[in-house]
Amino acid sequence: MRVLGIDPGTVTMGYGVVESHNDNLVLIDCGALVTSGRSTMGERLCYLYRELLCIIENYQPDMVAVEQPFVASNARSALAIGKAQAIALLAAATQSIPTHEYTPTQVKQSVTNYGASSKEQVQEMVRLQLGLKEIPQPNDAADALAVAICHLREIHLSELLARQGEKQ
Amino acid sequence: MRVLGIDPGTVTMGYGVVESHNDNLVLIDCGALVTSGRSTMGERLCYLYRELLCIIENYQPDMVAVEQPFVASNARSALAIGKAQAIALLAAATQSIPTHEYTPTQVKQSVTNYGASSKEQVQEMVRLQLGLKEIPQPNDAADALAVAICHLREIHLSELLARQGEKQ
Repeated sequence: MRVLGIDPGTVTMGYGVVESHNDNLVLIDCGALVTSGRSTMGERLCYLYRELLCIIENYQPDMVAVEQPFVASNARSALAIGKAQAIALLAAATQSIPTHEYTPTQVKQSVTNYGASSKEQVQEMVRLQLGLKEIPQPNDAADALAVAICHLREIHLSELLARQGEKQ
Repeated sequence: MRVLGIDPGTVTMGYGVVESHNDNLVLIDCGALVTSGRSTMGERLCYLYRELLCIIENYQPDMVAVEQPFVASNARSALAIGKAQAIALLAAATQSIPTHEYTPTQVKQSVTNYGASSKEQVQEMVRLQLGLKEIPQPNDAADALAVAICHLREIHLSELLARQGEKQ
């Protein structure tokens, strides 16, 4: 199972591809798409859309997981994050890849077992779970990997529950 | 000059195409794209994106004008409107059509000369300025036409100012 995680933003969009082999999680690739401050919003969204389509074509993920803030700090930033999310959801949907959205609390809970953990704690757990020497850089890439790990963990738990149900 | 106006929403997206001939405004087409309540957000965005690309291909607008709420009533609706805006801006940008965003106050000010006018007043002025017998339906279509008229008026005023500058 291969998941593309996305930390959406119109200025910087983090992405991370993680594959699960039994109980092991393996980092395939991660990085951040950075848009030009001189571009219009339309040009930025167009750049992000085309780059995401390339990433999807290159890595052929089975699913795409996108971070969805539950409450944005203000309406302006909510509008911007909404735009970036839309591009991620659209890129996946045009390739018929199922998408899932997770709030930051769900990601933290899943990756660190604690919903109020700090960004640094999440990033350190991403490093440990992927067996890396260093925390992936930039931070947006690490955050995107956390979303992918969260989704793989959700799938794993669902499978365990389903097997338990079959036994009973 | 032909402008496609868009009133963005992930449930209903209004669109309206208006052409200016000297001082006359002519309605070319208008309507609303309605997404299925059973679809995922990714599927909805995909549907809206493909339909908007068809509308752009059919009517070949010179510019696209999108309503941008200045302050959304809450973060959840801001996220949803941001998503719908992104799809409109992306559809235009992939076809290299310039986009412009207007707040509701700008649209009201431009169409009715009064920034705090009611939705009904805006819709009635849309009817009068396009020389129609009835207010275009549904309301989302009339709102989209208002955004297109707002943009055409802005261009008209800019041209008048430029000509004035040349004379002086």
